[in-house]
Amino acid sequence: MSIVTHLIGMKELTTDQIERLLDRAEYWAERPGVQTDVLKGRFIANLFFEASTRTRFSFEVAQKRLGAHVLNFIPETSSTVKGETIYDTIRTLEAMGVEAAVIRTKKDGLLTELASEVSLHLINAGDGTNEHPTQCLLDLLTMRQQFGRIEGLTVAIIGDLRHSRVLGSHLHALPKLGANLLLAGPSSMMPPAQIVPDGVKKVDIDEAVQTADVVMMLRVQLERHTDALFVSKEEYHRAHGLTLERAKMMKPGAVIMHPAPVNRGVEIHSDLVECEKSLIQKQVTNGVAARMAVLETVLKGSDKTWESSLATANA
Amino acid sequence: MSIVTHLIGMKELTTDQIERLLDRAEYWAERPGVQTDVLKGRFIANLFFEASTRTRFSFEVAQKRLGAHVLNFIPETSSTVKGETIYDTIRTLEAMGVEAAVIRTKKDGLLTELASEVSLHLINAGDGTNEHPTQCLLDLLTMRQQFGRIEGLTVAIIGDLRHSRVLGSHLHALPKLGANLLLAGPSSMMPPAQIVPDGVKKVDIDEAVQTADVVMMLRVQLERHTDALFVSKEEYHRAHGLTLERAKMMKPGAVIMHPAPVNRGVEIHSDLVECEKSLIQKQVTNGVAARMAVLETVLKGSDKTWESSLATANA
Amino acid sequence: MSIVTHLIGMKELTTDQIERLLDRAEYWAERPGVQTDVLKGRFIANLFFEASTRTRFSFEVAQKRLGAHVLNFIPETSSTVKGETIYDTIRTLEAMGVEAAVIRTKKDGLLTELASEVSLHLINAGDGTNEHPTQCLLDLLTMRQQFGRIEGLTVAIIGDLRHSRVLGSHLHALPKLGANLLLAGPSSMMPPAQIVPDGVKKVDIDEAVQTADVVMMLRVQLERHTDALFVSKEEYHRAHGLTLERAKMMKPGAVIMHPAPVNRGVEIHSDLVECEKSLIQKQVTNGVAARMAVLETVLKGSDKTWESSLATANA
Repeated sequence: MSIVTHLIGMKELTTDQIERLLDRAEYWAERPGVQTDVLKGRFIANLFFEASTRTRFSFEVAQKRLGAHVLNFIPETSSTVKGETIYDTIRTLEAMGVEAAVIRTKKDGLLTELASEVSLHLINAGDGTNEHPTQCLLDLLTMRQQFGRIEGLTVAIIGDLRHSRVLGSHLHALPKLGANLLLAGPSSMMPPAQIVPDGVKKVDIDEAVQTADVVMMLRVQLERHTDALFVSKEEYHRAHGLTLERAKMMKPGAVIMHPAPVNRGVEIHSDLVECEKSLIQKQVTNGVAARMAVLETVLKGSDKTWESSLATANA
Repeated sequence: MSIVTHLIGMKELTTDQIERLLDRAEYWAERPGVQTDVLKGRFIANLFFEASTRTRFSFEVAQKRLGAHVLNFIPETSSTVKGETIYDTIRTLEAMGVEAAVIRTKKDGLLTELASEVSLHLINAGDGTNEHPTQCLLDLLTMRQQFGRIEGLTVAIIGDLRHSRVLGSHLHALPKLGANLLLAGPSSMMPPAQIVPDGVKKVDIDEAVQTADVVMMLRVQLERHTDALFVSKEEYHRAHGLTLERAKMMKPGAVIMHPAPVNRGVEIHSDLVECEKSLIQKQVTNGVAARMAVLETVLKGSDKTWESSLATANA
Repeated sequence: MSIVTHLIGMKELTTDQIERLLDRAEYWAERPGVQTDVLKGRFIANLFFEASTRTRFSFEVAQKRLGAHVLNFIPETSSTVKGETIYDTIRTLEAMGVEAAVIRTKKDGLLTELASEVSLHLINAGDGTNEHPTQCLLDLLTMRQQFGRIEGLTVAIIGDLRHSRVLGSHLHALPKLGANLLLAGPSSMMPPAQIVPDGVKKVDIDEAVQTADVVMMLRVQLERHTDALFVSKEEYHRAHGLTLERAKMMKPGAVIMHPAPVNRGVEIHSDLVECEKSLIQKQVTNGVAARMAVLETVLKGSDKTWESSLATANA
């Protein structure tokens, strides 16, 4: 069994490593609000070169529930304005005794480069259009809780797929775990053909919604679509969104997921965000559990000492 | 006795609830620097959509002295830039296990809307020109410490009243507690007539200063008064400020208060800020105690368990 | 023995005080990663009016390893935008129970002014072009570890000396401790003659590199040198930088230091940053130890209780 020392992407993880991370995430999901000393006195830095309060808060809750010390980097006030490279920043953190860095960056593949050069543990919180592995893990945890398995599930990922790092991670993970993956969305938003593995089918949205166990709607990255091609939010909703009508066509037992933040009325009807079929809130809750599992795994290096280290403060 | 689950405004609190919050604030005021485990392992988010380091630090000190975990939201890096509503942000925090949100916003009445939709505890740190209830509570605590009572006191609130959320809270609280309220200031800065309750008198500044037990000067919101109507800081000071001469006309035993930050030489002479009559520093100190009481009250839901939970770390 | 209550600059410290701070810094340097309760429940504010993630993180690690509560001030969201003076900000922090403020500011000598007016402990994290005493202390610690002494060492400080607060501190400290100080750099970057003590020699860079035990390269403050006088990075490197050729001329046992962040290829060749002669990473590590010593010293007021207060959480 190889040890997970970084979390760069789902691409690098074996099926066994993914399953073990999910098992541990489930362990934390069953212990909401529990405060532990697992990482007491250890330092983790959150380096969000691209702002995301939502993801940073999720990591920060996970870090603090594990008892770690948290350092938050604020992009506007970066020492990188003085011309320092990210490599030098990471080496500086290492020298200060920081043991892990959670990094969000606009640059595809940045963490892969860094991983060969530094000894501090790296956790990818989204690198450009490449991967967002902790989002993928929380999605997988949510599916497994709901259906008891991932193998054999049909998962439709729908919408703005072109630049999606969430899709980037699922393209590696879902096939590994034996799920059937369907893609749907406007043709201008399809992912580059070369990143889509064999066996992943492109279908129209109605077919996707009707056949999937999991209907995963992606956020339209409105900030990227400012040109004339993008007609209007209403038009997008009608043509490519999860409307009330489409939701009615879902199979019995099928669920709605979304990595959030949601554009209500664009990729998903506002009334569906918190409907009975929706697992969107559950995904957010599972995000903390999944990140606790990741942080614990990379920082403890083994699960040997897990069981004995749980100290509850407010269980 | 109804339980306080949110702190939206002084308007919503009963006299009994206010008195009980003040009693608890006094309890903490008598224990400066004491570190406790009252809220150990529990998460509180500070969401300041409008910047205020002073108020945020006061809440953060209160939160950390109670042992809570603190998440700080930085406006510039908000996920709301991605188009998420505040409602969705709050629901996200709930899903992560965050139990209370301290919110400052430019939008009047925002918390009232949210309170009916979310289960997380909401604490108003200033909503537009509406209310600033923790500032009001710390003012009341300071008055009660000084005079032993609030009933029967004459409180003059002077200056830039038009957009003042501090005034907004006092207009509800002081009459409830039996204080006499006087308002003074330039006519262009008077509050809208419809929000001023019966029994509150408008007087000129000299009368206000001479008859009040508490002379509460409000900060001139210079950033709002950039037009030609506002002549100069010196002119304002002479006509509407607490000058050295006016301060000499105060009754024996009367005190000066100010919610701060102070514009020295505008609404108050610089030498008066830290003079013997001034309780301005005391107000800041009491801010921590008042906020500890509020946080503890909304998060513990009852004061039954208060006494037994005090653990001192550095008393 | 006088007690250190602020750390304004190396100018104000006696040789004995410096030695004692270095002894304590060495104590912490020998205990990497140790978590303590020395300052449990006590509040320290980091007020960086000039952004520096690197220095702020170093202080924050030091503060948290000592068990203190940390408040971070974010320049963009300052209450000083409302017109409050720094003096009023510090007084506010005092009133809230904050016991120490770590301040970085553009204004030379600001802390000296403040120190006479406030009771909160002030720690200079860089004031304009004046001093940066914790950087100086970590440099001294690094030299002492390497050579076993500072007395008699020849230290060459090379490069952009004109506006350097690091130099500002060393001009006071190194002569006090008996080191020989050499300065080298382009004539347009020399420090004002009046701040250079007698006995400090200006030499050319080749002589400096060949005769020094410590070759300390300073960062070219590129943001200050935007005018035509500054020809190019390559040109600067050839004429005034530590090139591979110059590094070969260093004495046996001589070391390279740099306060960082480094401009690779400008004041120092990229390959030298992490070469065998380089102590740059060690300096960063020592930064945490030096800052722990400073914080502990100013906040505990004496070293009497030091030994008994060390509680290890993850030694």
